[in-house]
Amino acid sequence: MERADVEDDAEFETNAAEVSLRLCGSDIDSEEFIHAADRAEHLEDLPLSKQVCVLTHLSTEEAAEALAELDEEMAGDVLESMDADDAARLIAEMDPDDAVDILEEVDEDHRDILLSNLPVEDAEQLRNLLTFDPDTAAGVMNTDIITVPLDATVDDAIQLIRSELEEKEMPYYVYVVDEHEILEGVLSLRNLMLARPGTPLAEMVNRQDVIAVQYDTDKEEVARQLAHYNFICLPVVDREEHLMGVVTHDDVLDIIQEEASSDMLGMVGAGQDETVDTPWTKSVHIRLPWLVINMCTSSLSAFIVSLFEGSIAEMALLAVLMPMVANQAGNTGQQALAVMIRQLATESFDAKRSWGAVVRESKIGLGTGLVMALIAYIGVLLLSGNGFLAFVMGVSLLLDMFLGAIAGGAIPLVLRALGRDPAQASSIFLTALTDSGGFFIFLGLATVFLF
Amino acid sequence: MERADVEDDAEFETNAAEVSLRLCGSDIDSEEFIHAADRAEHLEDLPLSKQVCVLTHLSTEEAAEALAELDEEMAGDVLESMDADDAARLIAEMDPDDAVDILEEVDEDHRDILLSNLPVEDAEQLRNLLTFDPDTAAGVMNTDIITVPLDATVDDAIQLIRSELEEKEMPYYVYVVDEHEILEGVLSLRNLMLARPGTPLAEMVNRQDVIAVQYDTDKEEVARQLAHYNFICLPVVDREEHLMGVVTHDDVLDIIQEEASSDMLGMVGAGQDETVDTPWTKSVHIRLPWLVINMCTSSLSAFIVSLFEGSIAEMALLAVLMPMVANQAGNTGQQALAVMIRQLATESFDAKRSWGAVVRESKIGLGTGLVMALIAYIGVLLLSGNGFLAFVMGVSLLLDMFLGAIAGGAIPLVLRALGRDPAQASSIFLTALTDSGGFFIFLGLATVFLF
Repeated sequence: MERADVEDDAEFETNAAEVSLRLCGSDIDSEEFIHAADRAEHLEDLPLSKQVCVLTHLSTEEAAEALAELDEEMAGDVLESMDADDAARLIAEMDPDDAVDILEEVDEDHRDILLSNLPVEDAEQLRNLLTFDPDTAAGVMNTDIITVPLDATVDDAIQLIRSELEEKEMPYYVYVVDEHEILEGVLSLRNLMLARPGTPLAEMVNRQDVIAVQYDTDKEEVARQLAHYNFICLPVVDREEHLMGVVTHDDVLDIIQEEASSDMLGMVGAGQDETVDTPWTKSVHIRLPWLVINMCTSSLSAFIVSLFEGSIAEMALLAVLMPMVANQAGNTGQQALAVMIRQLATESFDAKRSWGAVVRESKIGLGTGLVMALIAYIGVLLLSGNGFLAFVMGVSLLLDMFLGAIAGGAIPLVLRALGRDPAQASSIFLTALTDSGGFFIFLGLATVFLF
Repeated sequence: MERADVEDDAEFETNAAEVSLRLCGSDIDSEEFIHAADRAEHLEDLPLSKQVCVLTHLSTEEAAEALAELDEEMAGDVLESMDADDAARLIAEMDPDDAVDILEEVDEDHRDILLSNLPVEDAEQLRNLLTFDPDTAAGVMNTDIITVPLDATVDDAIQLIRSELEEKEMPYYVYVVDEHEILEGVLSLRNLMLARPGTPLAEMVNRQDVIAVQYDTDKEEVARQLAHYNFICLPVVDREEHLMGVVTHDDVLDIIQEEASSDMLGMVGAGQDETVDTPWTKSVHIRLPWLVINMCTSSLSAFIVSLFEGSIAEMALLAVLMPMVANQAGNTGQQALAVMIRQLATESFDAKRSWGAVVRESKIGLGTGLVMALIAYIGVLLLSGNGFLAFVMGVSLLLDMFLGAIAGGAIPLVLRALGRDPAQASSIFLTALTDSGGFFIFLGLATVFLF
């Protein structure tokens, strides 16, 4: 819808875009109208020098919009390569939250230069935002909001919205604050238009139980709250309930996508923000340490196997069946792991509910384990004709699947309790447990029962 | 923000809620004000009979809001257990897209009874929506939108918005259609308020390149588009560009969360919509078939090991090292898999880019494989003193990690090309490949070089 907001300038922009692309020697088709998000996608395919050239030849508004849609690291490089004056102009035009995201990627010295080129007030605001942890509500909030005093009337508020229309992108909410800037209520343009003219705002926000988040709330928790309430934006306050800014729905979409990616990638020890565009050498660097850790944990399971070398030498069939036990328990554990990690991502979880979930997984592990143990027992009995071996296989499978289910359910909770990301390397730890456990149980039982 | 919309009725609702909770013998604390999302969360903890009782004692508006926030399957059960007249009243009050989601969970016969209790027009609309695939744009769209004819003026449009304020939840956009209901443009209230009074809408939407999705577009693609453009809503059209409805940002949040969950759960063969609240017996049913498939694929790797029983009997150390090769390659493949699945979830991907990503993963597999092979070579050499064995270990590790990386990158693409979900059981297929491949390469090379 935002696209529609700039419709009046469409003709001018088209020409500017065409000219700028031609000037920079780019062969990208210039369309009648290009949305900033699409333009950013085109820009991402160009080398840095051409990106800078194209942005320099666009109108400030257009360039700022495109820059805000660009990958943040890339946008940081662009700002560093640009004339400092031009760069400062773009920063001043952007929403403060987008500007801060990019400035965080800019080298500190260069950042100071850029900030000193900004109007004092803008620079102050950005410097302030830069002090917040980027993973908290304050780190992703937008400070460009409309506040009205508690003693204003509905008509004042509507008037204020009208006067801010040109400036603000989505001016459909006003935040009502008292004389100490403490948030007293949130009113939508709809609330205001439906109210009797002349109604004091104090009357409208009376008894409103404002839903807001603390400035240091983890951004993923902010996303969960906004999604829970289906809000378009969520106000951010400090400990004394002073209004600091708002987190908007589009930022929340990004946070949710990022969290889903970082969980899935983190589980197996890939980089939490890796994409298919990450240089492969960088990916090698990110993933190697986890592969080394994986080798250490799998050395442990190898050590356990080595304790039973004698049994294996006597009956090589054990080496045939042993990986099946570990594999099956690993898969069982992965299922539990996936359910727990997604649940932690979409819901705030108390201790009671957490351990209830582990109990649930252990029951599933027992249930599936019993069925698979029976299948394995029959299979091994038919193929080997060895009843003892079949029994050992079945029992080991049941026990290791039970272990895998409990571990898969518990590992994310343990990681969280240790203050770590519940997903990070969880799959590696799980496999270490189900492999070692499976080998030990199977080879141990085999040694006891078969020799 | 929607909460604010009902603020005027807060007192009444509070009392109604308190009374209804007491009447139904529930001990849930009634708060001063309860948001529908929170009320739904409370309701989910009650048994069905109490859920029905509480909803019956709330105002129709309140009950409809809470029902819309409830888990869909649960809401379906509630409707089935309710008096048909009461149920129909709630359905009529809900947004059509929410009502359809729940009606899809209701038994077909009962659904017909409920629909026949509705006003003819509402029933017609819902019956129509029910014909669409719930996984497409049409399946998630809301039809409750404001359309204006192309020959209206800005003032007409603003007037229309004003008159719809009471009815509509977020009446900040109008959709401009021509005499054949073909979508010509989208205008925000902001556009309208900024325009010169009397401006014909035809002039404002002239040359607007409307961004809309086809009614049969996959809902995950709709989510990607809305996230890409940072829109609040995205219009849905048919092949002739007739406006059918809009998909809103809150539905997109749900779609993105669902996709992330179904990918992570699907990979390992858990149910794509399993949560910690799924009854454990149901989870056993969902997961067992995949565990059986996993057992079949791991039988294949066991069969490969069995081919080398002779070698293992002669040198049991092979059984010690063999799982390390498979485990390491499995982890490498999981890393590639995670990157690919997330990329497919967040971006529309063409064939060229897809295979480029597989090439990238193969390079990473080679890079990490070389390092790990060197570590393994040195480790085995130091521990066993057997240069040949160390060599076999290193080479197998390199080859199997390379295989794992390519498989991890390619499996989601192959699944997609086959018209399947790119994540479904991908982890199971991957492990089958890296296990079989690792055992075959390691034991094969060992047999050739060591005996």
